[in-house]
Amino acid sequence: MSDIKNYIQEHKDRFINELVELLKIPSVSADSAFNQDVLSTANAVKESLEKAGCDHVEICETPGYPIVYGEKMIDPSLPTVLVYGHYDVQPPDPLDLWDSPPFEPVIKNTELHPEGAIFARGACDDKGQMYMHVKALEYMTNTGNLPCNVKFMIEGEEEIGSESLGWFVKRNQEKLSNDVILISDTGMIANDIPSITTGLRGLSYVEVEVTGPNRDLHSGLYGGAVANPINILTKMVASLHDENNHITIPGFYDKVEELSTEERAEMGKAPFSLDAYKSALDINDVYGEKGYTTNERNSIRPTLDVNGIWGGYIGEGAKTVIASKAYAKISMRLVPNQDWEEITELFTKHFENIAPKSVSVKVNPHHGGQGYVTPIDSLGYQAASKAYEQTFGKTPIPQRSGGSIPIVSLFEDELKSKTILMGFGLDSDAIHSPNEHFGIFNYLKGIETIPYFYKYFTELSK
Amino acid sequence: MSDIKNYIQEHKDRFINELVELLKIPSVSADSAFNQDVLSTANAVKESLEKAGCDHVEICETPGYPIVYGEKMIDPSLPTVLVYGHYDVQPPDPLDLWDSPPFEPVIKNTELHPEGAIFARGACDDKGQMYMHVKALEYMTNTGNLPCNVKFMIEGEEEIGSESLGWFVKRNQEKLSNDVILISDTGMIANDIPSITTGLRGLSYVEVEVTGPNRDLHSGLYGGAVANPINILTKMVASLHDENNHITIPGFYDKVEELSTEERAEMGKAPFSLDAYKSALDINDVYGEKGYTTNERNSIRPTLDVNGIWGGYIGEGAKTVIASKAYAKISMRLVPNQDWEEITELFTKHFENIAPKSVSVKVNPHHGGQGYVTPIDSLGYQAASKAYEQTFGKTPIPQRSGGSIPIVSLFEDELKSKTILMGFGLDSDAIHSPNEHFGIFNYLKGIETIPYFYKYFTELSK
Repeated sequence: MSDIKNYIQEHKDRFINELVELLKIPSVSADSAFNQDVLSTANAVKESLEKAGCDHVEICETPGYPIVYGEKMIDPSLPTVLVYGHYDVQPPDPLDLWDSPPFEPVIKNTELHPEGAIFARGACDDKGQMYMHVKALEYMTNTGNLPCNVKFMIEGEEEIGSESLGWFVKRNQEKLSNDVILISDTGMIANDIPSITTGLRGLSYVEVEVTGPNRDLHSGLYGGAVANPINILTKMVASLHDENNHITIPGFYDKVEELSTEERAEMGKAPFSLDAYKSALDINDVYGEKGYTTNERNSIRPTLDVNGIWGGYIGEGAKTVIASKAYAKISMRLVPNQDWEEITELFTKHFENIAPKSVSVKVNPHHGGQGYVTPIDSLGYQAASKAYEQTFGKTPIPQRSGGSIPIVSLFEDELKSKTILMGFGLDSDAIHSPNEHFGIFNYLKGIETIPYFYKYFTELSK
Repeated sequence: MSDIKNYIQEHKDRFINELVELLKIPSVSADSAFNQDVLSTANAVKESLEKAGCDHVEICETPGYPIVYGEKMIDPSLPTVLVYGHYDVQPPDPLDLWDSPPFEPVIKNTELHPEGAIFARGACDDKGQMYMHVKALEYMTNTGNLPCNVKFMIEGEEEIGSESLGWFVKRNQEKLSNDVILISDTGMIANDIPSITTGLRGLSYVEVEVTGPNRDLHSGLYGGAVANPINILTKMVASLHDENNHITIPGFYDKVEELSTEERAEMGKAPFSLDAYKSALDINDVYGEKGYTTNERNSIRPTLDVNGIWGGYIGEGAKTVIASKAYAKISMRLVPNQDWEEITELFTKHFENIAPKSVSVKVNPHHGGQGYVTPIDSLGYQAASKAYEQTFGKTPIPQRSGGSIPIVSLFEDELKSKTILMGFGLDSDAIHSPNEHFGIFNYLKGIETIPYFYKYFTELSK
């Protein structure tokens, strides 16, 4: 594989241009207005896998958006790597905060990306990181360096809960059989501090609706005499955290894994500057659960955040109205051992319980997923670690992440294999935010590192 | 004036058609997209006053939307009535809750309006009620029944705080000089229980903005570690009421006029059914300040309501984001003696004080106005009372309203005259809500009652 650096140098512009084309298609799975674009993206991914050397590629229908499946089987006695990624993207809102349109990719230099970064929705999450695997396969097949079998499973509903993926995996266990699952949908600490994500938080996402009077009312004539659903919603949401920022839902913490003092001390060694963190976000202070550090709060502790709230008049000017209804989207990040369905039920019961008699409340569960921890003594982790050492010249740091990829625990249950999270994004890449971007360095470094994972995984499996 | 019933019967269809045409123009003052429509409405009002018999009508420019001024002066030694109304309307949102488009008036029968009601934005507030005065003038001039002088002042910014009206009144005290001001922009208890509004609440309307991190963040990576502006906003808003639903802003109640036991007992005699109230609004229970009845809560007590709230992702589906900013529109209804500018200041100071260090807060005052109480022994009140007796066959009940018409106290200060609030709408007319309507009975009864006010006011003034 000594020729890989040259291969990348030679094809670099094409690699970037191909990704730019893919980023132009607005595959927003959450909004049905983009239905056709999501389907076009699936087709584009199919074609790219064919060109990269897969023997067999198909668009597999599901109850929702299709899954693109591709494979290159060279010898059944060799190990098989299953690559997972997703071709759908987050909604780009709020549009007015983007410096350039989200689906018209531009390349700009930034402080953290002096070699340039591609700015577009999905650049990092996950089109850019998914496409690294396609290009790594191209290199391996074109140069005769593919050491084992490979399968691709690229879905289009990751940003809305991967429901069809569960359906598909349960029905295709043989087709998907593998020795290790490889995903690039996470990040690393810094471009000179490679890391591998070993823990993910689970997720429960719900939407709540508070209904007061049967119609919008004049706030002068009714104000003070009837429950205002917005005021009630703020009271109910506010009460979900106590003064120490503990979540107040009864039973919420029952199964939370408490880390030992040693484990927390080990975590505390990861390089972290609170001042740099605050200054990057332009905040005067951090805020979170009493008794835990910032890095603990966003990785080993469960959380509850309102992701959206709305009700009443939100247009220009003033309207003196008491709204009939108020709404919020609320997500809870969960840690290993918390069961997302159980937490969703606890939330629902509690939220209904705390509603005053003067309003009615509906809780609609959106989706969820379990948390996950990868053992660092597994073959897959060892292979990944050696691959980073090869290309970064440093041993990667194992790291717990606050994000959720609920399907990781689904894979473990259904396909009985371990997942390795080789993420090449940075926290500052603004995934799910305006001006999402992905460094050119990171993109190319991913393409360079992935083939070494195949090499070492195959060697260690012998 | 014995011919008035016949006159109305004869011209009834035209009276309705003319109002329907006026209601078709979407004069939404809060939204600059409707700028031209607001101006067209001013023109339509001008023409209607000319046709109704005014000698002189003009469109008076202001820093905002123009004021339509008209007059019919028959004898300087006779009293002068100044009619105030407004030609702008509330925004029609939420549009999807209207049974028919807000600016395409339709007439339908309802339980409370068996003779039909006109459904359209502004039908009751205030185009319909304002136009009663135009048609009453038409009757009086066409039949030689006008007993005194009359002036009209119809503005286009009532729904956004009447700022230009204050500017105009201060500069035109002589032009506007009068003996009594007559306004129909309130309601009455029921079609068979006439009432006259004698008290109005003041208003302070503000918009708040809570800013956390400098961009939207991924809730998995940052959740639990940084202040979420929406969660913080819910905590701050929730804290504005204590467990007894008292408002917690320091100094808020300092100047609130406390009614005597006798006064409260007198108020308690007004016909009111809590069961009917709850059932009309489809609520299981009322909600409000401890120690006060429903009718007290919405008339003699100040309130604080969120009229709109928004932040984060509010589209279809799910987005796991921590928003950079969250917003709310908040209005406080005030009672006589509370000064709206002082209350706005108290709110601003308090809201800034309760913000945690991890967010920044902005309070933008929108507009406001003072509360008002009309003495029932004034000439104007007596004349109005006799007019209702004449046309309804019953003495009207004096009633304190929860709504605000801030300009009433401006008039008292600048023009030194009392205002009489002869409102013909019903609480159930859904003003400021989807499906606003105004009963045909109420519209015609208003046209019939107004000329008697002129008659008795002129007689009592001798």
